[in-house]
Amino acid sequence: MASVPSVSYSNTVRLDVPAQGQVMSRLTTAVEQAGGIVTALDVIESGREALTVDVTIAASDTAHAESVVDVLRALEGVRVRKVSDRTFLMHLGGKIEVNSKVPIRNRDDLSMVYTPGVARVSTALAENPDDARRLTIKRNTIAVVTDGSAVLGLGNLGAVAALPVMEGKAALFKRFAGIDAFPLCLDTQDSDEIVRTVQLIAPVFAGINLEDISAPRCFEIEARLRELLDIPVFHDDQHGTAIVVLAALTNALRVVGKELGAVRIAMSGAGAAGSAILALLLAAGVRDVVVCDEHGAVHGGRTDLTERMRWIADNTNQGGYTGDLRGAMEGADVFVGVSAGGILREEDVARMGEDAVVFALANPVPEIDPDIASRHATVVATGRSDFPNQINNVLAFPGVFRGLLDARSHSVSTELLLAAATALAGVVGDDELNPTYIVPSVFHSDVVGAVAGAVARAARESASVATG
Amino acid sequence: MASVPSVSYSNTVRLDVPAQGQVMSRLTTAVEQAGGIVTALDVIESGREALTVDVTIAASDTAHAESVVDVLRALEGVRVRKVSDRTFLMHLGGKIEVNSKVPIRNRDDLSMVYTPGVARVSTALAENPDDARRLTIKRNTIAVVTDGSAVLGLGNLGAVAALPVMEGKAALFKRFAGIDAFPLCLDTQDSDEIVRTVQLIAPVFAGINLEDISAPRCFEIEARLRELLDIPVFHDDQHGTAIVVLAALTNALRVVGKELGAVRIAMSGAGAAGSAILALLLAAGVRDVVVCDEHGAVHGGRTDLTERMRWIADNTNQGGYTGDLRGAMEGADVFVGVSAGGILREEDVARMGEDAVVFALANPVPEIDPDIASRHATVVATGRSDFPNQINNVLAFPGVFRGLLDARSHSVSTELLLAAATALAGVVGDDELNPTYIVPSVFHSDVVGAVAGAVARAARESASVATG
Repeated sequence: MASVPSVSYSNTVRLDVPAQGQVMSRLTTAVEQAGGIVTALDVIESGREALTVDVTIAASDTAHAESVVDVLRALEGVRVRKVSDRTFLMHLGGKIEVNSKVPIRNRDDLSMVYTPGVARVSTALAENPDDARRLTIKRNTIAVVTDGSAVLGLGNLGAVAALPVMEGKAALFKRFAGIDAFPLCLDTQDSDEIVRTVQLIAPVFAGINLEDISAPRCFEIEARLRELLDIPVFHDDQHGTAIVVLAALTNALRVVGKELGAVRIAMSGAGAAGSAILALLLAAGVRDVVVCDEHGAVHGGRTDLTERMRWIADNTNQGGYTGDLRGAMEGADVFVGVSAGGILREEDVARMGEDAVVFALANPVPEIDPDIASRHATVVATGRSDFPNQINNVLAFPGVFRGLLDARSHSVSTELLLAAATALAGVVGDDELNPTYIVPSVFHSDVVGAVAGAVARAARESASVATG
Repeated sequence: MASVPSVSYSNTVRLDVPAQGQVMSRLTTAVEQAGGIVTALDVIESGREALTVDVTIAASDTAHAESVVDVLRALEGVRVRKVSDRTFLMHLGGKIEVNSKVPIRNRDDLSMVYTPGVARVSTALAENPDDARRLTIKRNTIAVVTDGSAVLGLGNLGAVAALPVMEGKAALFKRFAGIDAFPLCLDTQDSDEIVRTVQLIAPVFAGINLEDISAPRCFEIEARLRELLDIPVFHDDQHGTAIVVLAALTNALRVVGKELGAVRIAMSGAGAAGSAILALLLAAGVRDVVVCDEHGAVHGGRTDLTERMRWIADNTNQGGYTGDLRGAMEGADVFVGVSAGGILREEDVARMGEDAVVFALANPVPEIDPDIASRHATVVATGRSDFPNQINNVLAFPGVFRGLLDARSHSVSTELLLAAATALAGVVGDDELNPTYIVPSVFHSDVVGAVAGAVARAARESASVATG
């Protein structure tokens, strides 16, 4: 699979170079011949004999970025003074901040923001705690909670190492949906302690976004918190992914003219994301699906089934297929992979049914190179930003929480997840839809509003059903 | 005690009034005769026959504010359309927000703020967790933690009702010291659970500000957290108050020409604030102090002593005085009250020594009306903003935490609290010092810098002692 230079592996290199003809083209040529892309070039100091230049270079990965710098270092007359990693520069001091929304200019302001004035607001809340959504930050504030046990695809890095991810998530919540999100990285991986801690910190928040908690603990933690709390609890790795996959699959089937209830699906991966995707696909009307893990198809005859896999066996594979993933893919209309990189061969895709749909979502390396899959499948999607049809949770979580907060929702229902997926799919109009455009860009201005509106409607309907 | 109108009891009243001569003076006269102060007057709509006017009125308390509105309502031809409480208006939607510090304009930004770029930062932190103070918000972020058990002077209002106070505190941390503070209101009043929860959420924070936790639980919670955590833990109700009291007393004694080590002090109140004040006064060199509670002087012969009161008995009252507060005040140089409103009579102050100093800090009603105390004492201070010499924690906590964060401190020592008090006292120059100016205004531009600098120096010194 071709690895394309990306700004996420981007260095700014400060160089001293001789002040003589064609020095800039020597630099840019060297970078490009080494496979890097020059994204900026600034002369910092100019002298009679030497220049100081900042060259910013996108590379394919860390090793490549270093090798490009080595090429510059080897150029005659060039001295590398400093290499600054743009991604690290962006993280210096953290990515979010807490600001006051009210002016504190003088004693009068102080007496309203803090004592003595605030005492009246506290007294009012003690009498009527429901007013917290009117008189405090609770209305628009959520917690992004992790234990650092499954950080991105990197594994169990712990609480501190997870913080940059949670800060990034908080920044995205504000950028895309105007939500105040605060990261909490818990220094425990004990499910009981996580549940209890989230319960104890809940008063300040109107929603809990669980993040990067490993399976199967994430299932239990989420289920118990939903039982205990009167605010919505959403594990983005599960439900965010499920919403975007269902939306993308809805549109992929629009492209190939098939129906959800009629297609045969082979799935690879039964972890947190896989389970949630499966549950949402079934709720949306999918009837024929076989889920495989590293031991082959999940079926009722297997003796190694966990509680969750037993549920999968009970709700899928009605034909009782007992073979492996490759067999399950024969003639299938759809492949959904949330498993491991490079596990499929070209012939596996070639043996799928006509107008096949392949979602190879393992990250950073998909189950199959999307360029190869495209030779046989009509629609191909991945989790990567450098190929078409990126299945990106940013399409879902900002709008989902915006809708939950707007509706003052106390819970998350399956109907609500389905509504979010339908709304997200609907952002791509019939005139825009094609095999390389089944999901909108995360920067598409309609995404958050469409998802939030649908979620808020669904939340209000399920609340009125529950109370009425 | 004269109760002065304050903006913290301030309403904006929208009125329809007849469009005829002297209508404005009728309104303002009515307000002023009712004891209110007109702080703003805006004509919202002007018609041929009627005007709509917004009148903003400061009153003494809630009942007074309502009575002023009733007076307006009774005026002929005047119709009150709406009464808006300015303090409540300021709290709508909460007082703080979480913002992104980094731009997220396009896919490139996204790939650095979030996946895939953030993975490299997380990996780096997993290898070197100490870099959290460089690459995450930890460097400048503290938690403001309460259980709502002792909210202001209001008592045990619980977690939700405490949130406006904690938000206000967070707003002040940003306004005065540029610190990112986030409120956590815990839904438990069990000490073990509070300690464990704070321990579990600690990875994100570089400091913990405990707030409004009732005594004696606050002593144990703070002590255990200081033992468990590698970040500073500061209970503002105790140590913030103690710093400001010591600074104010230092300057009061400058005014009357006495020495800390030579004065006799009568204290009233042995709760959280009282204990902390006492401990800091003793550390600063005070030698002669008698502490009284509602049962009289604390002495070793009493049979009702808690562990903390036993400590007080062991470290004060060397003369073995067994009488009541009034007796303890006879001939005393200093009275420090952190107890209950109105417990002193004028003659109690009159019987103090020459050039007496009275700190009547009970809130909102001081131990004695400061106007009455001033007839006999040379220096009088209260906790109120409507009298001179306000003992206000805002003078201490922003600078203390700024210094702790700047020094990357792992703990809070008594030396550090003493340094903060000395620095705060020093902000008032000899040419400024007088009986009604023993502490600077909270808006004095030197306060935070002076306190932060002294705290950072003390923190670095104690760290070098500890490690060297």
